[in-house]
Amino acid sequence: MDERLRRQVEFALEIDKEKNVFRQTHLSGHGRNENDAEHAWHMAIMAYLLKEYANEPVDISRVMIMCLIHDIVEIDAGDTYAYDPAGKATQKAREKAAKERIFSILPDDQKIDLTAIFDEFEEGKTPEAKFAKAMDNFQPLLLNNSNGGSDWKEHGVSAAQVYGRQSTTKPGSEKLYEVTDKIIRANVAKGSLRES
Amino acid sequence: MDERLRRQVEFALEIDKEKNVFRQTHLSGHGRNENDAEHAWHMAIMAYLLKEYANEPVDISRVMIMCLIHDIVEIDAGDTYAYDPAGKATQKAREKAAKERIFSILPDDQKIDLTAIFDEFEEGKTPEAKFAKAMDNFQPLLLNNSNGGSDWKEHGVSAAQVYGRQSTTKPGSEKLYEVTDKIIRANVAKGSLRES
Repeated sequence: MDERLRRQVEFALEIDKEKNVFRQTHLSGHGRNENDAEHAWHMAIMAYLLKEYANEPVDISRVMIMCLIHDIVEIDAGDTYAYDPAGKATQKAREKAAKERIFSILPDDQKIDLTAIFDEFEEGKTPEAKFAKAMDNFQPLLLNNSNGGSDWKEHGVSAAQVYGRQSTTKPGSEKLYEVTDKIIRANVAKGSLRES
Repeated sequence: MDERLRRQVEFALEIDKEKNVFRQTHLSGHGRNENDAEHAWHMAIMAYLLKEYANEPVDISRVMIMCLIHDIVEIDAGDTYAYDPAGKATQKAREKAAKERIFSILPDDQKIDLTAIFDEFEEGKTPEAKFAKAMDNFQPLLLNNSNGGSDWKEHGVSAAQVYGRQSTTKPGSEKLYEVTDKIIRANVAKGSLRES
């Protein structure tokens, strides 16, 4: 195998580890915790199906690959729960080191490409990144809501915390933010989310 | 929520079940069995990174969505092991019923779109479908090879069976088929695959 293909194959095997990074979200039907690879797969399909609700036109191919790779750094850095302030404080540094190590497995041109896609998502400024971020919020919201908000209840999360996290949905999709708002209100009403 | 969005959200929740459809392939590092959602995620990223090896130019956006949805029917039909002749005999009928039920959850235009993408993959005639099929073969081949061919060994699979299955890699990528051939030979040499 030539050197270029050897590095691509090594990368393909490396990212297999993302299937072992588990999140706080549970599968619908009160199932087990979801892992990052499943989350990314789900987000990418949802992006394809819900793209009509993006605030601005998006290059759906770029949104999909962005969704698919946006959590690869968690192979080294682990999943940081959205409502864990201590973890959030060190998240950037841990993820930066991981990004350098993991994307360096690839041939240089592909390292540059994937790093750019990853950074674009993190910065959240392009229409594609804004919409991918909306999917990153909306996908676990749907799962959690289908389970009666049990992920929030378990961690004693407040409505303000959820509004904080979900605020990045609005720049990607006003329409999906409306749905998000209704879901949050309903979960406050039934006691799955603390009101303050 | 309006009727269109309600159906899209219902579909998004329905496909969550694909994370519970387990395959014969094991994760690298002799891990647990892989599920369909993880397999699809992995294939779509590999398609993006290996597209330079497609025999013909491909629309990578279409290849990615094809990879992501190609196993959705297994939510109802289950995974049919590539080397299970009895399962293979009834696979088409089971998957056809599943396709109708699951894609009918979507608004009509999206049902038509996803059904067309699914059928295109199954038929394997377009450059995109041929390359997606190469990924469907190459992804589990890499994982299994990383585990010393233990999935084949466990089922007493022969080289001829693997060549039969992997034959659909060649129309998608001559280059990746060369690698496939080397991997098969190496696994015969070390006794993980029966020679005949």
